[in-house]
This record gives sequence, structure tokens and C-alpha cells, in this order.
Amino acid sequence: MESVWYDGDAVGYVDQRALPQSVDRVRARSVDDVVEAIRTLAVRGAPAIGIFGGYGVALAAHLHAGAAFALAAARIREARPTAVNLAYAVDRVLARVDGDYLAEARAIHAEQRDVDARIARNGAALFPQRGNILTHCNTGPLATGGEGTALATIVAAHRAGKDLHVFVDETRPLLQGARLTMFELREAGVPCTLIVDGAAAVTMQRRGVDAVVVGADRIARNGDTANKIGTYGVAIIAAHHGIPFYIAAPRSTFDFSMASGAEIPIEERAPGEIRITPDDAAYNPAFDVTPGTLIAGIITEYGVLRAPYESAVAELEAQPRILIGA
Amino acid sequence: MESVWYDGDAVGYVDQRALPQSVDRVRARSVDDVVEAIRTLAVRGAPAIGIFGGYGVALAAHLHAGAAFALAAARIREARPTAVNLAYAVDRVLARVDGDYLAEARAIHAEQRDVDARIARNGAALFPQRGNILTHCNTGPLATGGEGTALATIVAAHRAGKDLHVFVDETRPLLQGARLTMFELREAGVPCTLIVDGAAAVTMQRRGVDAVVVGADRIARNGDTANKIGTYGVAIIAAHHGIPFYIAAPRSTFDFSMASGAEIPIEERAPGEIRITPDDAAYNPAFDVTPGTLIAGIITEYGVLRAPYESAVAELEAQPRILIGA
Repeated sequence: MESVWYDGDAVGYVDQRALPQSVDRVRARSVDDVVEAIRTLAVRGAPAIGIFGGYGVALAAHLHAGAAFALAAARIREARPTAVNLAYAVDRVLARVDGDYLAEARAIHAEQRDVDARIARNGAALFPQRGNILTHCNTGPLATGGEGTALATIVAAHRAGKDLHVFVDETRPLLQGARLTMFELREAGVPCTLIVDGAAAVTMQRRGVDAVVVGADRIARNGDTANKIGTYGVAIIAAHHGIPFYIAAPRSTFDFSMASGAEIPIEERAPGEIRITPDDAAYNPAFDVTPGTLIAGIITEYGVLRAPYESAVAELEAQPRILIGA
Repeated sequence: MESVWYDGDAVGYVDQRALPQSVDRVRARSVDDVVEAIRTLAVRGAPAIGIFGGYGVALAAHLHAGAAFALAAARIREARPTAVNLAYAVDRVLARVDGDYLAEARAIHAEQRDVDARIARNGAALFPQRGNILTHCNTGPLATGGEGTALATIVAAHRAGKDLHVFVDETRPLLQGARLTMFELREAGVPCTLIVDGAAAVTMQRRGVDAVVVGADRIARNGDTANKIGTYGVAIIAAHHGIPFYIAAPRSTFDFSMASGAEIPIEERAPGEIRITPDDAAYNPAFDVTPGTLIAGIITEYGVLRAPYESAVAELEAQPRILIGA
């Protein structure tokens, strides 16, 4: 399933707010439509937002010229101020010397697909021929516009003939696992079972789990990894049961300026996402940081990084960037 | 706050389904009302159900005689077939030789209060003068009809002047922590903060937690403890951070016939409690089993049991039962 695409005079997207009850394929036919889809989280996942924004600039060039076009591109760029991928994609499309914005947006999309496919292939090789995999949050095609990261490794192994079954953490508070990952695994034909986050430990103890794989929001030089709240607990519980715990993420997720995860700030979201009454105090961190010492490997498009991560990440930093279709 | 009581011609209860939005004090004035309150989970928590059923038999004796009374008592006893405390309380009230059923029901209630108060006192001594405690699920007055078990230890320490703050796991899927424990701690004036279950690890890592205390559904001779789903994961995460993990439960929770937790069956509840669409497969265990090796102490009305639990539990088994007011 494609989560975002360009179809001539509109940017298409799957409205992620309606999933899994309904698969609504929507056409954004104006710059207003594009901005609205980003603002309302109809399109979510940092890479997917970037690709969508790139196509949005191509649409704007199709509809507007001169000052009106420049204003439209700026509005798209600012639709979600904290989305680094969005600003990167808009700037890169606008910098296209021959003005073929659509070609540049398609190149960004193609690069994402290529990176995802390499991650998928590198990760799939880590799983046994038959077994149970556990994952947390949502890391499939909806989030990246390509095949995804952690979820793509599982789907690739399934397509290669491995007999895998996936336990999916529901991922409170926003239930990305229950709503999106279960949907994506069903679409891909991979057998899967939903659990509450608190059931991960008994699932590992009594049902048998052969590997855990999750995505990442930011990775420090020592392998410390920020990811969706709940990831750190899953990593501790996996270590307790002797189960390998993997991160799957592209090189662009590494923050080479950061020596360790102690420097990563933990974003807190509104208490209203979890509390039952307005009287309740609530601590609602969006992310946690898993120490590199609990991570068996970090699956990237260049290969699988292993401890000690300081040297592995330095090698990754020195790699030339993979560029295709530019 | 009392969760159940007798007031002359009715059995009173707080309707737990309406909490925390509304504190509805309801009077069950007929045997039908009593049975209905138990069946619909308006009254929940095994000890609280037992006390409520005992008062229900006293009410039945007030309203009916002869065969009608015997039938009424049998209906109350069967209102929740799996509730051991309910059958025990009804049988004990009916066995009262002088026929003063209300006195016997009050004795059961008084014994529960006494046991809870002893647990509270024994547990409160374990906490530091100032610090953060983390708990899971609901173990306060609503569940027992007395002061509670795990939650009672925290409230007792607070009343004794200790400066404690509590992190409360919301406890998916049924949210007993978010709905009931937060309410009870507010009522008791203890500062508390709600977290999602997946945030327990980062809370221990970045906010500082000095002890974890939870209740129990069944305890084996080696200290292995069945409790609400999520408990086992919290115990592993606490061990990883070097934080003491305590169980608080009365002697009646010990299953002296069971050598280890491997024998404890894990009850599975309906997938509908957690899945988003009917297409989803879901694994929804109601309990998990925490190995005694992860438990720093088991707080009972007789004192705090410490490892090795085989000998400590054998000593507990040999203790005379505490009986008052009989």
C-alpha cells in the first residue's frame, strides 16, 4: 500500500485518522488541501510527511507562478514546524536547478523506497526461519512512504518464505500499534496478534518470542536510542529473557553530534491524552531512551551495526550517502 | 471512604462503574438489588464482594423467612460463581448458631479492616521518609472493604508523616489504575501522578522511584505471585534499576497447595477488550506471574516475608489465624 503519491493534478494520501476502520484515499487538489492534511495528521510519520510536502511543492508549481508559488511553498514548509524531513524535502525540491520539481519529489520518494528496502533486506536475515517477533508502535509503509523500517524487516522475511508471527504492542497512549501496525501486517498477509503493552513480559515468558525489532526517532554515537514511549521497558524485559532486541533505522536518524542518550531531551505531551478527569496529574513522555548496552544490533541501509557502537557509528558516519535517481 | 456498609434496611455501596466521574452511594433494598450489584460489577474486588454478600444475607433475613430466605441466600452466593470470598462469607454468615447474621457479617468486615490495617502498618515501615512509590492496578478500600492492601501501605505511610508521591500505572486494558487508584489517592490526600504502563521504565530511569508495591491474586510457596497483567514487567524493570519490588497481600491469598507459579493457570479474557476491529487476533491474559526471585518482600498481616520464601511461607502457614469480633 502506498501512503502518499502524485497523480497528475493532485497529491494523493491515505487518511491515517480513519484507519483501521476505513481506508480513505484522498486527493489534495490545492495547496490548502496539502497544508490541511499535514496539520491535521491525516498524513503522519516524518519521512512520509517529507515526501508528501515535496509532492505538494510540485502541485503548487502546477497551480501557481511567481510570488503566489513562493508563498505556497513556504506555507507547506511551515505546516509542521518541528518536522525536519518536511523542511528538508521542500528546500531540496525548490533548489532543483531545471525547475522540474516533480522529478525531484519523485527522487526523494525513490530514495526513501531504496533505503527502506535495504533496511528490510538487512533485517530479514536476522530472523529465524520460523518464530515469533515482537514489535512496538508503527514503523511500516504508512510512516515512511516506502516499505517502512522495523516492520519492513518482518514483512521482507515473510516474503522470503520465513514463517513468522508478530506480537504487536498496542502502544499507549495513542495506540499506533493497535490502529496502524495491525492494519499494515494484515494488508501484508503476516499473521499477527495484538497485546496490551503490559502483556509483553508474560508473552515472552509463556508464548516464546525469538526477537524484538522496533524503530527509532534519534540515535546517539554510543547506540543509545530514543523511540516511542514503552520501548525502553520492552528492551529491559527482552534482555531479562535473553531475547535479542534490534533497532531498525536509516542513517538519517543518527545524530552524530550526540555522544550519548543522556543528552536527548524527553518531549512531554499533554496530560489530557491519558488522564480520566481534569483533576489528575499525569506524566506523559512521548519517548524514552534505550541504552545501547541493551541493543543487539542496529539495522541500517548500510548493514547491521553491532557493539561497540562508538566505532560502528563512526564507520557509518564516514560512509558516502546513498543517492539514486537524482 | 467506605465501599460497602449496612444501614438498617439496606446494604449500601459505592457504584464503582460510575467512578471517578461520579461518586454514587447506592442503597440495595432487596435481594434483587444485591444480586444485581454483584453481577454488574457495581461492587468489585474479591474481599469487598464477600463483605457485601455477607450483609446481603443479613438483609435477606430482615426481609424474608423460611424457604424464601434460604433461596435468597443461595441466589446471593451464586451471583459470581468464581468469587471464593463471596461463597465463604455467605456460608459463614449462614452458619451463625444464634441467627444474628448481621453480627457475623459485621465480624467479617471487622476482620478485613483489621487484616488490612496490619498490612498497612507493616508495609508503611518499609518506605523512606521521603520519596516516590510506583504502583499498578487497584488495591485500595474499594477493592477490599477495609483500607486495602498495597495502596493501604502507602496511605498509612502518608498518614504517619512520610512525604511520599505515587506514580500510578493506568493498568490497561481495564484502566483500574487510572480510574480507581488515582481517585482513592486523591481522596486520601496523597500526591499522585498517572502514567501509561509503558512509561514505568523511563519514570524509574529519569524521575527516581524508591519502591514499587502491588497486590496479589495468588501466591505460591516459593513466592511466585500471580497479579494483574503488567505486574511481571514492572518487577523486571524495577530489578534492572535496583528498586525494591514488594507484594502486599493477606495470608488468605497464599495457595499453600502450590509449590511454584508454574502451576498457576493464566486466565485469558475476551479479545474484544483490546482489539480495534473484529478482524484482529488478540492475546489478552488477565494476570501474569512474577517469580519470587524478583520480589524484595511480601507484606502480610503477620509481618514482611523475605527470601527464601519456601521457609517463610511454611512459617506463615503454621501461624494461627487472626480472628477478632467473632
